[in-house]
Amino acid sequence: MKPGNTFREESDRERAIFEAGIKLGALYHQWVGTPVSQESAASVETAIEKAVILQPFVEEITVRLDRFAMKKNVFGYSELSGLMFDAEIVTRVGFSYCRAALAPDNGYPLMRILECHEIASLSDH
Amino acid sequence: MKPGNTFREESDRERAIFEAGIKLGALYHQWVGTPVSQESAASVETAIEKAVILQPFVEEITVRLDRFAMKKNVFGYSELSGLMFDAEIVTRVGFSYCRAALAPDNGYPLMRILECHEIASLSDH
Amino acid sequence: MKPGNTFREESDRERAIFEAGIKLGALYHQWVGTPVSQESAASVETAIEKAVILQPFVEEITVRLDRFAMKKNVFGYSELSGLMFDAEIVTRVGFSYCRAALAPDNGYPLMRILECHEIASLSDH
Amino acid sequence: MKPGNTFREESDRERAIFEAGIKLGALYHQWVGTPVSQESAASVETAIEKAVILQPFVEEITVRLDRFAMKKNVFGYSELSGLMFDAEIVTRVGFSYCRAALAPDNGYPLMRILECHEIASLSDH
Repeated sequence: MKPGNTFREESDRERAIFEAGIKLGALYHQWVGTPVSQESAASVETAIEKAVILQPFVEEITVRLDRFAMKKNVFGYSELSGLMFDAEIVTRVGFSYCRAALAPDNGYPLMRILECHEIASLSDH
Repeated sequence: MKPGNTFREESDRERAIFEAGIKLGALYHQWVGTPVSQESAASVETAIEKAVILQPFVEEITVRLDRFAMKKNVFGYSELSGLMFDAEIVTRVGFSYCRAALAPDNGYPLMRILECHEIASLSDH
Repeated sequence: MKPGNTFREESDRERAIFEAGIKLGALYHQWVGTPVSQESAASVETAIEKAVILQPFVEEITVRLDRFAMKKNVFGYSELSGLMFDAEIVTRVGFSYCRAALAPDNGYPLMRILECHEIASLSDH
Repeated sequence: MKPGNTFREESDRERAIFEAGIKLGALYHQWVGTPVSQESAASVETAIEKAVILQPFVEEITVRLDRFAMKKNVFGYSELSGLMFDAEIVTRVGFSYCRAALAPDNGYPLMRILECHEIASLSDH
């Protein structure tokens, strides 16, 4: 790397952002390829949510799968693909929260940070 | 291959066996690695069953995950591993059924054929 | 099940067929979703072949990924999908071999038995 | 959430951190479960590296798999598990770089930020 500034200690906010990225990347690659249909989609949403909430630093997770994107193959079902995901996660490290999302954007299953939030700690008063 | 007999047309029974193998192999590698706990295990069992039953030639599928094998890591959860699976599937092609299973055997997640069954068709009478 | 004939002991040929199904189902669901491009496809083919050949009862495995099916997303790469696979496997149990394949058929990534082969054992002479 | 400060525009540095998290989470869950041995490990390392480098914002990726952790099962091979990974990634967004790692820590496959680095842009002079 070229000269510049190096930071070796990340903030809670940065760690919350990092954890949100980890969880969205993990969720995507764990579940892509699962056989799915409009009838079974709810069970997959529930299973993903219950799996993700187990992981450290996760405060909230909601997963919705796009039923309209579930085109049936010759045997009448689909496979879970990246563009079917509409997921939102909230991670927390210390007093810092990160809200991030996975959703289709320009034909790509985009993951992005929605907002960060830092709660005033008692010691700030 | 050495000289011998070659069969190019498989029977319904053989196809039912082949399909049972496909589904067990698929199930295993789709879901291994999923974060899981004793509390979330039921949601994973349901999601797997609802995913497998969508696939062609599947008549029945039951999945039980071994809660006792779910040792907690430092963050209090486990990952779904091969030895946690106790699954049984019935596939059907024509009048032939195959019942097969995935379960631990000597420390290995073994898949095996339990039995095949052929129903007498009307034309046999 | 209705009345009929039940077989509890499968033949070597049937076990070879079962094992071929397991390996094709496993391969598919392990690797679907992997980021891939025309430049990296060969490394994925090699890694899959070297992984599958480790498994019991596998004699031969060849995997070819369809470069033409690798449509670039907005970031210039693709994800490995079922229809990109052209794989052929030979399994062996005892003196029985099964050759099976995974390849696109009518827009579905179809797995099928190509042929079975039984070698005359010494005791047959 | 409780009252506090909300930030809706993340910095390049934060996006680099987010992207590093995504890639490590994705890598882990895509590849866990792959059959592997000491002989095949290099092919898996290469395939993972070539897959990850395709993804947006990735500048460098190195993956080493712990051969000593590859305990053989009854059939003589292992499955890729989280604790076998020693991976390091560098992501870049604008003039900001993030170096992050996945490696065993206290029996857990820990992902963490190693350092961030910001290069002075021309316009700073």
